[in-house]
Parts: sequence; structure tokens; C-alpha cells
Amino acid sequence: MYAVPGDKKVKVGVLGATGTVGQRFIALLETHPYFVVHALGASARSAGKSYALGTNWKQTTPIPAGVRDLVIRPCNPEHFQECAVVFSGLDADVAGDIEASFRAAELAVFSNAKSYRRDLNVPLVVPLVNPHHFNIIPQQRALHSPPLQKGFIVTNANCSTTGIVIPLVALERAFGPIESCIITTLQAISGAGYPGVPSLDIFDNVVPYISGEEEKIEWETLKILGELAQTDGEFAFEMHAHTPLRVSASCTRVPVIEGHTETVSVRFARRPAPSPQQVREALAAYAPAVQSAGCPSAPRHAIWVHEEPDRPQPRLDRMFQQGAGVSVGRVRQCPVLDIKFVVLSNNVNIGAATSSIINAEMAISTGLIAV
Amino acid sequence: MYAVPGDKKVKVGVLGATGTVGQRFIALLETHPYFVVHALGASARSAGKSYALGTNWKQTTPIPAGVRDLVIRPCNPEHFQECAVVFSGLDADVAGDIEASFRAAELAVFSNAKSYRRDLNVPLVVPLVNPHHFNIIPQQRALHSPPLQKGFIVTNANCSTTGIVIPLVALERAFGPIESCIITTLQAISGAGYPGVPSLDIFDNVVPYISGEEEKIEWETLKILGELAQTDGEFAFEMHAHTPLRVSASCTRVPVIEGHTETVSVRFARRPAPSPQQVREALAAYAPAVQSAGCPSAPRHAIWVHEEPDRPQPRLDRMFQQGAGVSVGRVRQCPVLDIKFVVLSNNVNIGAATSSIINAEMAISTGLIAV
Amino acid sequence: MYAVPGDKKVKVGVLGATGTVGQRFIALLETHPYFVVHALGASARSAGKSYALGTNWKQTTPIPAGVRDLVIRPCNPEHFQECAVVFSGLDADVAGDIEASFRAAELAVFSNAKSYRRDLNVPLVVPLVNPHHFNIIPQQRALHSPPLQKGFIVTNANCSTTGIVIPLVALERAFGPIESCIITTLQAISGAGYPGVPSLDIFDNVVPYISGEEEKIEWETLKILGELAQTDGEFAFEMHAHTPLRVSASCTRVPVIEGHTETVSVRFARRPAPSPQQVREALAAYAPAVQSAGCPSAPRHAIWVHEEPDRPQPRLDRMFQQGAGVSVGRVRQCPVLDIKFVVLSNNVNIGAATSSIINAEMAISTGLIAV
Amino acid sequence: MYAVPGDKKVKVGVLGATGTVGQRFIALLETHPYFVVHALGASARSAGKSYALGTNWKQTTPIPAGVRDLVIRPCNPEHFQECAVVFSGLDADVAGDIEASFRAAELAVFSNAKSYRRDLNVPLVVPLVNPHHFNIIPQQRALHSPPLQKGFIVTNANCSTTGIVIPLVALERAFGPIESCIITTLQAISGAGYPGVPSLDIFDNVVPYISGEEEKIEWETLKILGELAQTDGEFAFEMHAHTPLRVSASCTRVPVIEGHTETVSVRFARRPAPSPQQVREALAAYAPAVQSAGCPSAPRHAIWVHEEPDRPQPRLDRMFQQGAGVSVGRVRQCPVLDIKFVVLSNNVNIGAATSSIINAEMAISTGLIAV
Repeated sequence: MYAVPGDKKVKVGVLGATGTVGQRFIALLETHPYFVVHALGASARSAGKSYALGTNWKQTTPIPAGVRDLVIRPCNPEHFQECAVVFSGLDADVAGDIEASFRAAELAVFSNAKSYRRDLNVPLVVPLVNPHHFNIIPQQRALHSPPLQKGFIVTNANCSTTGIVIPLVALERAFGPIESCIITTLQAISGAGYPGVPSLDIFDNVVPYISGEEEKIEWETLKILGELAQTDGEFAFEMHAHTPLRVSASCTRVPVIEGHTETVSVRFARRPAPSPQQVREALAAYAPAVQSAGCPSAPRHAIWVHEEPDRPQPRLDRMFQQGAGVSVGRVRQCPVLDIKFVVLSNNVNIGAATSSIINAEMAISTGLIAV
Repeated sequence: MYAVPGDKKVKVGVLGATGTVGQRFIALLETHPYFVVHALGASARSAGKSYALGTNWKQTTPIPAGVRDLVIRPCNPEHFQECAVVFSGLDADVAGDIEASFRAAELAVFSNAKSYRRDLNVPLVVPLVNPHHFNIIPQQRALHSPPLQKGFIVTNANCSTTGIVIPLVALERAFGPIESCIITTLQAISGAGYPGVPSLDIFDNVVPYISGEEEKIEWETLKILGELAQTDGEFAFEMHAHTPLRVSASCTRVPVIEGHTETVSVRFARRPAPSPQQVREALAAYAPAVQSAGCPSAPRHAIWVHEEPDRPQPRLDRMFQQGAGVSVGRVRQCPVLDIKFVVLSNNVNIGAATSSIINAEMAISTGLIAV
Repeated sequence: MYAVPGDKKVKVGVLGATGTVGQRFIALLETHPYFVVHALGASARSAGKSYALGTNWKQTTPIPAGVRDLVIRPCNPEHFQECAVVFSGLDADVAGDIEASFRAAELAVFSNAKSYRRDLNVPLVVPLVNPHHFNIIPQQRALHSPPLQKGFIVTNANCSTTGIVIPLVALERAFGPIESCIITTLQAISGAGYPGVPSLDIFDNVVPYISGEEEKIEWETLKILGELAQTDGEFAFEMHAHTPLRVSASCTRVPVIEGHTETVSVRFARRPAPSPQQVREALAAYAPAVQSAGCPSAPRHAIWVHEEPDRPQPRLDRMFQQGAGVSVGRVRQCPVLDIKFVVLSNNVNIGAATSSIINAEMAISTGLIAV
Repeated sequence: MYAVPGDKKVKVGVLGATGTVGQRFIALLETHPYFVVHALGASARSAGKSYALGTNWKQTTPIPAGVRDLVIRPCNPEHFQECAVVFSGLDADVAGDIEASFRAAELAVFSNAKSYRRDLNVPLVVPLVNPHHFNIIPQQRALHSPPLQKGFIVTNANCSTTGIVIPLVALERAFGPIESCIITTLQAISGAGYPGVPSLDIFDNVVPYISGEEEKIEWETLKILGELAQTDGEFAFEMHAHTPLRVSASCTRVPVIEGHTETVSVRFARRPAPSPQQVREALAAYAPAVQSAGCPSAPRHAIWVHEEPDRPQPRLDRMFQQGAGVSVGRVRQCPVLDIKFVVLSNNVNIGAATSSIINAEMAISTGLIAV
């Protein structure tokens, strides 16, 4: 069924395995049809312990049986040589060097860290949006010294960017370029990792600031929605420069455990702008390439459009489709721009671990990784 | 000091005295320099009981000693004849008729209900913004049948509108008309009264919809910020029509007890637009008429401008100046409109009870009510 | 595998289908091996609508496909004649009459309401504790006028009682009678149904009182843990009178969505009392009859004993085994009584819907209901 | 009025001034009739900065004007020589050495840390309970090498102990010794300081474990309620040994910002035990020595007894009397021991800063500190 030959299992490694995103990788992979967790990497403090003993497990399902007794390794490529895929949930302060060393060791790295998102040769891929940006990878390999045969790094986007670009790409496909977009985010505490946000800061409170977050949304959106242009045989991300897109984000932290809610207003280049009903239909109809490629973790509905006036809501909707799609609701006219709506995305799943997993599935499906 | 002759005390009544806003009126009036709670009105269910027994008191300070033993009355003007001022915290479903009967009985009514906000002869007054709209009151009285000598109704704005119009009026005074404004609100549960929002709906959740709220912000802002025009001796609210202002609001409920946070982006008519620093200075310098009129409940700082990057926050800032002003932070350039910032206002104080109290103080100070 | 002949499906009805417990019944039954939701009953307000339109669905999984379009019926036995089992999640104020009418119509009713818990001929059954109390049902039928062939009522316990009696029965089986037990509950808001607890009452708060709850724990525990004595052919609940048991409960509501936490101290009649380690082993070894009877919804571990010092915790442990068992932790010496520990139970699953479901499975397995 | 001669101001220092307890000291002292904050100590990281710049201020009132510009000092006695009183909100890991050095420098230290609570010559004083334990201080000074003239250390109790011993001492005064006491605590997050409890650990959750807390309650209660016995001129704490008291505590953390709720069951030695009504009266009548000594921060009601069935509640009652007393409610018979009730205490005020302040007032009032 899936584009994996036969019943072959694919060994994967997880870096930052004891952290919030690492734990979610492990929980999600438990039931994966072909990925099998084979190696776990974490800081020296945990290395050498069994996963069960070395991890302060915070998921609401038990540690998968096949992972409990795996010994945690230091984040050194030698321990991951058998892994066809390496998922990284490393913190940004260490991810840069470690991920580079894994790539240099000819490993395929799918990273949640921000270290390489702005790299001119690393694709920043939201799997429901722009897996065609994988096309830069041969150039990434070629520019490495020495040139690589198999190693590469793919990053996924910041969690709050992810929720935005999925509906935006659907709208651009249907109605042409978007000119401007104003966003306010209401982000969950799990987005800050563990220990993350002190309870005294966020109980009965809103913190209207997340360091660096607005800049990420405003910049990453351009890289993801822009084209991968080819000039004289050289690939470059054009950053939506052909039809300039202005993005303005205001980011807040709210007392919610999981699920980022975002209010969005957009203005289209095309006049007249599409109606709310046309927008609803375009969102619901959006079919990303990862679906037709048979990626098993791709959601059946990339975008679920709610008709109820008070949805989506993080507590009720964040686990729909295992958190692999996004929910959109309240599509209506904006008196200032054209259309406004509300998006909900699961920041730990499609906003982090699930995106990496689908990216890896897509890399296998397209032959970027041979299995 | 204040514009009240001598040490005279002014008797006031409170309608809806057992509700959320009514309780806050009573708590705030405990230390008022000249208002004295004299009569309490509530539904038939509570009438006849002492306030202490008839009220499910939910404030964090005890019931004021002078109010504990007052007997709750039905909301009938005859019990309020001695009150120079009547504050109404009534629910919208009953406020219309009751407030009309009080006005007809020559009482001065300051209402938090929405019933008369769209009335062509009733001023919608945020005391830090447009107390000059009181000038319509002679016309309101004259149009009554029979014409009134003393009775009138003043309404204050919806709590989420209040937080917006205070910075907007400061900006318009300094930089001329605003053309468009996009707002996302993160509103506290106390805005829905009691019992209000079920805990199962809002724990670990955001509800991205509050019935009628967006329309209120989009409409009320125009009435409040617009002029009270006079043509051929007749007064009319011009609804900011001279320099059209488009307002777009997205309203959400968040798990916060008190204090509405709002993200705001604005575009000015004037080119070039003011810089963030100019905006900060204009906001901090804004001095509303209620200050110079000596209204004792007016805040010392109508707008407190935060320099810290992560403020204002509802839990930390909502009780600054007894919740009588608003806090603004994060003033910065907006890549789509001109300037964006965050506002915090105490929805129960300046968003409701405190606004009515300052309005009444101003009505006394300007002689609209003779004491 | 299960004690149901062949692949036969068993039709069930749900009363109070739109409420909190009713919704959980429907969510849990979606994947049941032989129960099929066939008829839904609710108040006249909802009757006649499809379930999808008549219900304010608050579960975190979507409405099961097979239920979305079922038409809601009034709670009248005529609509439930084909149901071999009727689950009731009705509110106590209407449950008494409706459940009686269903029993009179020869239907098998499994109720979560308190109406018949103190009835001398109705068993109060926590399925992991005392399904042998079903033995009173022939007497219940015989005393009905006219005597019944098939109809009966079984109740399950109050949610906070359920969490207590499961470890207590395990301890009594292993170590003989318990003499006294002091309990403090920290109960979730979902225990109060919907709309239930107003958010303004419980945010950032503890309410140290739940009406009638302490009496329920203190009384129900005696009926459940007591024997069903037979004298001269007549059955009667002996209420643990043979070895008197004193229970003292202090009930509080805490800001938790689901999962009741309870601290428990017990004193055994036997001297010397068992050690903490003996208690841990007895709890972990407890194997209720519903397991050997093959009830498909019975948990694999009736009692999961945590070794970590800070468990169980409601958010992390309430969904273990679909919330069908209980979690116990912190088993240690009590300086006043003998042993103290902490219990966590899912108040909506084993504390309500799951208990009814296992009770019905057991009634089928034991032939009390013929299918 | 107060036992301070004339209008003299008393200079005080605050150690750990930037922490949770240190901030509360500063907020509470702003309006103190004679204490004036004169010197602030914190870690080397903050030292040298003004208080406003060196502190992440988290109180809901602004930094007092007189403190904003004070320069933070290292915790070195030389900077505190002019302080008649030094309050310590230091963390336990550094408090031991620093407080010793301050005492050795002849300073009067009032500590919230646990370091000296078990010291045989340091009084553990809850000001509403046992200020007579100050009588050990001459012995503490004499045993120092070299003997001290003025320096000493007084500790106050752990916050959860404080809430318990106030009602217990009232009951022992009225009805004689208590034999046993079973307690469950529901403790606020502020008890863990800042950053303290990660939000991911406590949102929608209960953590049924606080490291070391149960031992503290069980041991500190005995020291505080026991006598300071004198034998052959030597003072020693008798730890309630004359009439042994067994205390059993189960400690939990709940999602509440401030205010510890505790359920308590007690058994008296005296038979018959007092009735609930007698207990209520004894609690309400309890008048600690700090009241008659005129300590200005002593609450008017040491114990406020609620008659409403659902009180005390942390959100509504924690700031009553500035959090300087405790609230007791639900006094009723316990089926296992004699009497059970619920206590609420403000863990940051009477549970920490306010206790130190009243202790210092009492030390001045009794002449232990000459001013």
C-alpha cells in the first residue's frame, strides 16, 4: 500500500529523546507501520541509562514496550549508523553541531531545531505544504566538503508557523498570491518544552510575548511559501519575492497545555477577493502531495473546516487525526483585509514530531532515502 | 478638592446589585469620597433579604459593613427616589424596561447593559474618552414624553471596546484620524458574568467566539470615537463617518479570571505614520478631561506604557490604579498596517463598574446632576 | 473468546445520551466488541433531532459514525424494546421515575444515578468489587408487582466511592477487615456534569465542599464492601455490620478536568497490620471476578501500583487502560492509623460509564441477561 | 499605641530580596508603621544593580517607591550593620552559612529557610502560636563562640505547618492535649518559589507529593506545640513528649496560585471530646499573645471561623486581613477521630513573610531587640 517495498521495517534514531519533542516522537512511532525506534540519543547526563530510567516521561500513554529498555546513547553518529532516518528533537543550543556531525556521517537528519532553518541549502519543510523543497538536497550534499552521498538535513518549521502556512498555501493554490497577513497567536505552554514556562508566570494569565517567535513566523512563512527557483542550474529559495507578501504576527502564551490557536486576516492580490464560502471550499479541498504519495502519517484531511461558530478549540480538536492536520473555523469577511479565520494546530504533533515523521516518509517515498 | 461642594455625601443606588458587576460597584464604592450606597435593587428572588443573605458574594474583599444589612429592593423607582445616581449592572434581558422606568421617574441612570447603546439619543461614554457626548442629554430629556427635567440614561461601552478606544483616542488626538484597525481579544471569564462560562468549556482551552462581541467592538468604536455633530440645533452621532474608520475584531475567551488582553494593529491616515516612539509618548501623555475635572476615581495615568517586552499581563497589571486605567505595551512597527501594540484593561473595573462611577462623577462635576 | 455466543451483537440503549456521562457511554461503546448503540433517549427538548444536531458534543474524539444520525427519542420504554441493555446517564431528578418505567417494561437498566442506590433490593455494584451482589436481582424482580421476568435495575456507585472501594476490597481480601478509613478527595470538575461548576468558582481555587458527597462515600462503601446475607431465603445487604467499619471523608473540588485523586489512611482489625510492601503486593495482585469472566472492558490491571514517589497524577494516569482501572501510589506507613496511600480513578470512566458497561458485560456473562 | 517608643522608624534588611518571599517582604513592608527597608541582599548575579533593574518583580502591586532605587548588595553582614532586623527569604541551599554569618555579626535574623529549624537552640516560631519560645535566645547567644550580645536567629515554620498549628494550639488551649491528627494538604504553587513548579507538571493536574513536606509537618508541629522546658537552668524543646501527639500528613500540590487548603481530623485526649460547636467557639475566641502585645501586623482575628458550608476557599479568602490570619470552616464530627475541619492559610503571608514580620515586631515589643 505504502511506497515502501514489501514489509521492510525502517530503523530510526531519535536525538533529544528525553525531551518534550523526543518523547512525542517515541509515542507516535509506537504504532508506525514501518518505522522502528532503534537508537536513542540524549545528553551525557542520561547516556548509559535505560530509556525508562533515564527519562522523566510526561506523555499520557506509557513508554512503548520496545523502547523502555533501549540504552540511551550520547548524540554521536557512531551509535546511529544503522538508522536510515534520524529525528532530532534537540535543543537549539546544541542542535547545530550535533546535526552537522550526523550529516557529515552520511545520516539523514530531520530536525525540529531552528539552527538550519535559515541555511540557504537546507529546506524548511512543512510536509503538508512544500516537500518539493527537498529538491535542494542534492545541492546541499554537493556543497558539503567532501560531497555527501546520503547525508542531509531537513528542518521543519516553528510550531506557530506551521499552523499558518497550511491554510495559506491552500488559499494561494486556489486564489493566487496573498499580499498581506496579520496573525495573533495564542500558544500552548508545551511549545516551550520542559520545564519551560513556570506555572507562576502563566496561571490565570496571558504573556503577550515569546522571544523570537514573531520574527520566525514573519520570515519562515516567506521561505516555505516561496518557490525554490533554479537559475543557471543553481537552486535558491526566492522567499515569495516575486509577489511580495507582508506578514505581521503578535504572539502570546496562554494557559493551554497543547494546541496553538491563531487568528488570521489575509488580503489577496486578486480582486475581487474570494468569498468566505469559496475560501471554506478551497481549504476543505486542499490535498497535499504527501497524501497522494501514500505517506502513512499524513492526515486524511489536511485542513478540517468547522461549521460550528465556536470551533476550533484546542482541548476538543487538537487530537483529531492524531494532531496531524489543522482545523480552521470562523471563516468570514474581514472589514480591513479580505478574509479572516481561526486556525488550530497541535504544536507538538503537526507542529513538531509529526511533521518530521511525514517528511521522512516522503523522503522515502520519493527515493531521497533508499530503504 | 473635588468638584463637589463641601463634604456633602451623594446617595447612590445599585441595580443588579447581586450580580458580578453589581458586586464590583459595591466593593469599589466602599472607599469612595462622596458616593454612599443607599439603595440596592435585584430580582424578586432576592428582594426582601438583607444584602449579606441575599447575595452569593464572590469578591475577594468582605462585603462592606454599611451594605451588609441593607435590604434588597425590587428594581422599582419608588425605592430609589433619594438616589442622585443609579448604577445599573442589570442583565440585558431586563435592563431595557427597568432603566426606562427609572429615567421616566427622573432618575439619572448609568448603565452597563447594551440595551441603549445604539439609541440615537443615549450617549455611549467611556469616561477616559468621550464624556463630551453628555451634550446629547438635554435632547434625550426633551424627546421624552413628557419631557424630563432630571432623568436620563448614560451607557458605558462593552468591556472589550473600552480597552480599545482609550489608546485609539489618544492616537487620534496626537496624529489625526485612524483609517483601519485589526484587533484580536483574549477575554477573561469574568466578562461573561456568573455563573457564566462553564469550567468544562474553558479549562485548558480557548473558545474563539463570543456571541455578538465582534459586532459590538466594530460598531461601538465608531460611536465613541466619532463626533457628536450639531446640525440646525439637533445633535447626532456621526459615527466617525467624516474620516471612515474600518475596525475588524476577532474575539476569544481564554482561561483568565480578570483582565482583557487585546492585540491591536492600526493604520493612520497621515503619511508618514508616527514612529513607535512617538506613539509611546502620545499614549503616555494622554490626559483625559475627567482628570482635569477632578473626578476622584479617574486614574492618575489613563494609559500606562510598559517598556518591558513581556508586559502588560492580566494577572500582574489588572489591579494597577485599581483597574481604572489601561496598560499598553509592545508598541512596535506593524509590517502590514503601521503600528501594533498590546492593551490590557480590567474588564470589571474600567470595563464596567469604574466607567459608570467616573461617568457619574463627571456628570456631577459638570452640573448635569445637581447635588 | 468472550462469553457471548458467536459473533452476536447486543443492542443497547443510552438514556441521558446528550449529557456528560451519556456522551462518554457513546464514545466508549464505539469500539466495543459486541455492544452496539441502538437507541438514544434524552429530554423532550432534544427528542426528534439527530444525535449530531441535538447534542453539544464535548468529547475529544468525534461522534461515532454509527451514532451521528440516530434520532434522539424521549425516555420512553417503547423506543427501547429491542435493547438487551439500557445504560442510564440520567440526572438524579428524573432518573427515579424513568428507570422504574424501564424496569417495569422488562428492560435491564444499568444506572449511574443515585436514585436507587439505597434501595434494599437494588445492588450497588462496582464491577471490580462486588458483582456477586447481582444475586439480589431475582428478589428484586419477584417483589415487583407484577413480578418481572427480565427487568431489573443495577446501580453503580458514586464516582468518588468507586476509587476507594477497589483498593479497600483488595486489602480486605488479603488482610481481613478494615476498621477505619479516613479519606480526602480532590475531585475533578467533570464529576459535576455540564454545565456543572462555573469557571469563576474553581479557577485558581479549591472548593472544600461537594453537597452530599461525603455522606455517599461513608454510606456506599459499607453497602458495597458488606456482604449480601441470606436469612430464611431472603437476601439483605449487611452493610459491613459484622465487622463495623467507620469511614470519614472530606471532599474537595479542584481545578482538574478529569480524574479524582484521593488520599486514604486505613486501620486494619488484624494486629500486626500488614507492611507497606505487603499492601503493595496485595493491591497489585488483586484479580476481580470480571477478569476471569472475560468481560472485555475489564482492565488488565484492576489496580496499578506506582513505585515513582510522585504518582499517580490525574493528567498523566487517568487514561491508562482507558480509565477502567485505578492507580495507587505512595503506599507508606501512617503514623496515626496503619497505612496510607493515594488513589486515582477516572471519574467518568470507571467512576461512571465504564462501570456500567462492565456490569452489563458481567450480567451477560453470568446469564442474568440472555442474549 | 504600638510598643515602639515614639515615632522611631526601625531599619530592616531583606536577604533573598529578589525571590518570591523576598518580594513579598518588600510589598508588605511598604505600609508598615515603623519598619523601613534599608538594605537588600541577593546573589552576586544581582548585586550592584538597582532593585528595579535587578529584580523580576512578580507582585501585583508596583515596586514600592522607596525600594526601586536601592542598590542590591551581596549577602554580607557589613552592608546590613545599620539594620535592627534582618529578614531572610534565602533559599535553603545558601541560607545556612549566610544566616550564621549575620548572627555572628550581632544581627537579628528572622529566617524562612529550613536550615536552623531543627537546631536545638533556635526557636521555630509561628507568631500566632509560640513566641514564648524566644526564651531560648539567651541560651543561643551564650552558646555562640564568642558569646553574642545581640545576634540571634529565629526561624518560622514551613508554610503548610503554619496553617495547622494555629488551629491546633487554639484547641489545645481550650480542650487539653491532642492525641492524633491526620492532615491532607492542597498546596499552592507559590509555595515552591520561582521558577518553581513547571506549568506542564501542574496544569489540569494534582501532584500528590512534595519532597520533604510531610516530614516537616509531622516534626515541626511537635516542636512548635511542645513546651520549652527548663531543667537545671537549661532550656530544651520537649517536642510534645509529655503528652505524645501523632501527626500524619499527606501533601499534594494543586493548581492554585496562593493559599494552602488543608483538611484536618483530630482526636483529643479528653473524653468526651468537645462538640463541633465548642470547637468553633474556641477557634473564634483564640487570642494570641502578639495581639495583646500590640504587634501591628497581627491579624484582628487569628482564626476566622466560616459558617458557610463551602468556605474557606483560597481565591476568595487568602487575602482576608492581608493574609495574616487563618480561615477555618466545615467544623464537624469525624466518624473516625473526633472532629474534622478545613483550614486555609496564605502560604506567602502568614506562611512566610508575615510570620517573620510579626516575629520581629514581637521581638521588639518584648525588648529582645532594642530600638
